[in-house]
Amino acid sequence: MKDIQNERDTRNIPINKVGVKHLKYPITILDKENTEQHTVASVNMYVDLPHHFKGTHMSRFIEILNAYRGMISYKAIRSILTEMKTRLDAESAHIELTFPYFIEKAAPITGAKALVDYRCTFSAAKNGHQLDFVLGVEVPITTLCPCSKAISLEGAHNQRGVVRVRVRFDKFIWIEDLVRRIERCGSTEVYALLKREDEKYVTEQAYANPVFVEDVVRNVTQQLAADENIRWFSVEAENFESIHNHNAYAEIISEHHPKKHTDTQKPPLR
Amino acid sequence: MKDIQNERDTRNIPINKVGVKHLKYPITILDKENTEQHTVASVNMYVDLPHHFKGTHMSRFIEILNAYRGMISYKAIRSILTEMKTRLDAESAHIELTFPYFIEKAAPITGAKALVDYRCTFSAAKNGHQLDFVLGVEVPITTLCPCSKAISLEGAHNQRGVVRVRVRFDKFIWIEDLVRRIERCGSTEVYALLKREDEKYVTEQAYANPVFVEDVVRNVTQQLAADENIRWFSVEAENFESIHNHNAYAEIISEHHPKKHTDTQKPPLR
Amino acid sequence: MKDIQNERDTRNIPINKVGVKHLKYPITILDKENTEQHTVASVNMYVDLPHHFKGTHMSRFIEILNAYRGMISYKAIRSILTEMKTRLDAESAHIELTFPYFIEKAAPITGAKALVDYRCTFSAAKNGHQLDFVLGVEVPITTLCPCSKAISLEGAHNQRGVVRVRVRFDKFIWIEDLVRRIERCGSTEVYALLKREDEKYVTEQAYANPVFVEDVVRNVTQQLAADENIRWFSVEAENFESIHNHNAYAEIISEHHPKKHTDTQKPPLR
Amino acid sequence: MKDIQNERDTRNIPINKVGVKHLKYPITILDKENTEQHTVASVNMYVDLPHHFKGTHMSRFIEILNAYRGMISYKAIRSILTEMKTRLDAESAHIELTFPYFIEKAAPITGAKALVDYRCTFSAAKNGHQLDFVLGVEVPITTLCPCSKAISLEGAHNQRGVVRVRVRFDKFIWIEDLVRRIERCGSTEVYALLKREDEKYVTEQAYANPVFVEDVVRNVTQQLAADENIRWFSVEAENFESIHNHNAYAEIISEHHPKKHTDTQKPPLR
Repeated sequence: MKDIQNERDTRNIPINKVGVKHLKYPITILDKENTEQHTVASVNMYVDLPHHFKGTHMSRFIEILNAYRGMISYKAIRSILTEMKTRLDAESAHIELTFPYFIEKAAPITGAKALVDYRCTFSAAKNGHQLDFVLGVEVPITTLCPCSKAISLEGAHNQRGVVRVRVRFDKFIWIEDLVRRIERCGSTEVYALLKREDEKYVTEQAYANPVFVEDVVRNVTQQLAADENIRWFSVEAENFESIHNHNAYAEIISEHHPKKHTDTQKPPLR
Repeated sequence: MKDIQNERDTRNIPINKVGVKHLKYPITILDKENTEQHTVASVNMYVDLPHHFKGTHMSRFIEILNAYRGMISYKAIRSILTEMKTRLDAESAHIELTFPYFIEKAAPITGAKALVDYRCTFSAAKNGHQLDFVLGVEVPITTLCPCSKAISLEGAHNQRGVVRVRVRFDKFIWIEDLVRRIERCGSTEVYALLKREDEKYVTEQAYANPVFVEDVVRNVTQQLAADENIRWFSVEAENFESIHNHNAYAEIISEHHPKKHTDTQKPPLR
Repeated sequence: MKDIQNERDTRNIPINKVGVKHLKYPITILDKENTEQHTVASVNMYVDLPHHFKGTHMSRFIEILNAYRGMISYKAIRSILTEMKTRLDAESAHIELTFPYFIEKAAPITGAKALVDYRCTFSAAKNGHQLDFVLGVEVPITTLCPCSKAISLEGAHNQRGVVRVRVRFDKFIWIEDLVRRIERCGSTEVYALLKREDEKYVTEQAYANPVFVEDVVRNVTQQLAADENIRWFSVEAENFESIHNHNAYAEIISEHHPKKHTDTQKPPLR
Repeated sequence: MKDIQNERDTRNIPINKVGVKHLKYPITILDKENTEQHTVASVNMYVDLPHHFKGTHMSRFIEILNAYRGMISYKAIRSILTEMKTRLDAESAHIELTFPYFIEKAAPITGAKALVDYRCTFSAAKNGHQLDFVLGVEVPITTLCPCSKAISLEGAHNQRGVVRVRVRFDKFIWIEDLVRRIERCGSTEVYALLKREDEKYVTEQAYANPVFVEDVVRNVTQQLAADENIRWFSVEAENFESIHNHNAYAEIISEHHPKKHTDTQKPPLR
């Protein structure tokens, strides 16, 4: 049977990325409290394509993902990327996984427990022997407007906001630990389950800690810049303004710290 | 050339709706202040298909929409539905248009003006000679939690909410007038442009008028049930809770008022 | 501490539905092959609210869901609805779960296996002692246009389509079995993993079996109407037309078969 | 009244971008055939914030947009960015507009006319005196799989695809002209309105011109690389595979051509 993809292409144009996008797949992730967590990811997988090949073999991406989905760890992602490069005869390989991750949170006063969802991403690439891994988390927070509080006799407008953080690091970081540091950077935290005593607490805590989106990204920056393990980060804060039908937004992107881990170093992620 | 769609189908199964969906098209709408407003709609158009036909002729929907898009009024929609029935040889015809509609609002203190967007829908069907028209509007509001205010020493959690209202009526209603009545049913209104004096005003107004989603749908119900022109309505309120990562929701659907306008009555919409 | 929600409301307006919406939660579902399947649901939970109460107690919805999420079966849903009615002192209770469900499919020639995702919904309500349960599945298919094939010298436009089916039934139905019957109603089936031999097979099978969206909904209707266990169904087919930037759509909604299962009958779902 | 935003911040952290996001606003755009076109944009506007300021003044973004929305041209965007820098006392200013743009297309045989929608973006930034302008267009196409055609006795799977192109250029480019060049890079073009004769034509044309996503991005690259006016481009092709529930994807990003236009050069866009 003819293999069109393997035929020669004469346009002399290499392709940066070719592969599959928006594939939904169930995966298992390492979980700090419970060893592992089952979730569902939207997956993109790409390789580069040299100028002389007409096409890539898309089915191999699925075969590789299907083999590794039982435990998506740092180690697995390294292996997936290596296998993508080998089986697709490529110089570089990329994988992006976006998935909800659940962390049990206890309400601040009653201790009532329920799960909060955090949208996470693993975004990894292997270029030659160089591995690049970016962990992303989206953390919902409450923000209370400092201006509104300062100028009003009573009350202050507040709203749900979301903080999106992406980090490059040297040593393994638990999603749970990164989330914990970010959700303290708003006016108060967001919970799935709050009883009345808890609602009183978060209301008063928010009123005592007003923050702009500008404050949120600066607070997160202070946290991450002080951590020697973080080599690079970006942080975005977006407020679903309660008094507008549009959002307030702020973003800080750090410089790259020169040190770079490679395959020959100790693995930063388990 | 063969006309497969016109062939006989032997499965003896009539089809309720067949047509085109998610067609993006620029349209012009009547505007209370400026005579007309240009916007962009997502359009669905369907007819029924008797059991003996194999298929409908999809291109005719586009031809009809293209001819009428210059002014989508009540009259135009009636004509569109009649033309759909005739040209597609159908008993019933349906059209649904969803579009952003913009209303200029003045800030409450400074009077600074800017446009607020409201997602609107025209949903109309003609079954024999019977016309059914449903107008839908989505109105953003601010809601401040009565419980949070009552139990907390200071402050109260509040958030953006949205009220979705659909109405059937006898006489023409301006989108502007329906929106005005709904946006007064929250804790305060949402604006595109607020200066500091305005922000102080809406903050204090919200704190003085706490409402649950339950209150919002009841407030809107009081407004609409008292209006003799409204024969039927549904109202939903959804709060993007500032202290949770999920929403609070309430819904009321009215009884149908018996009177029904038909093609032989005076047109309810211009 | 004050309980505002329990206060008396004087507007004399009962509320049809009040509760939580768009709550993301991990759940476990019965799986025909593997006993159980872990997935992530978007959850809505509502109760009615009598006219004399000011508000409902939103946190109780989360407590109930959290207790049952370990196994969402028909039995669990019945229990959840009963508990919602009891704990929230309501006449009616509603729950809607939307989640991706994965089924392993073997490619038609090589037998290569991978998972295909199907968006499913459980939509259940308890009104007094009457239970209503609706199962929904979204099944991707390939459709090849009969008109395009008939009039063209070679080839025929084809595309991915989706079939959305909702059913009410008497005896338990596996999601797998419902999906199997639907995915045979297009031109050919959709797979996650196809090798070249498989691609040849599905291409030729699609070309041999052209279907309009009208044919898809009629084919599914034939399947479901012939099944005595199905008391009611709706079926929608939507084609992401390869030659247009809009979709083709068809819908059939069945009559209700009079028989209705209640709590005193044998459970239709395990 | 207190101006919290103007207060001094001591964390010593400058912010890359701060502003408003997801603001829906009606705008008017230059149109090659009809002088101007009314559409609706989703707008983001940001400035940088020096380390010593606590916050920016969000309402000024809205005031500026509201003043210019009547004609969003290259000139207007330059003025908007300059005004943002001045009024918000910033070093850099960014604006992003995403909007549907409609072009009338005649069907290939019958010449029947209707509008096709193209999602477009203007993404511009001014850093000091340096202006950077990126035009983006999303063009729907039909793609027919070369592998499927080569290995199958009859037919070939095909599907709707989308090509996303972003360009930096020296002299003004009409959206219409950029779109025209891209929509010829697939197997055939997508139309809103096709009669049977047209459907026969596009079916046969697609079958005669099979392309992978790899071919699409290479075809577009050939077009854009040969144009001296284009200094930089990125091109993505995504196929909504008819035989899978996931998409095929390819991407090429060009090198930057060194020449850079600045405010002192002749305006590239009218």
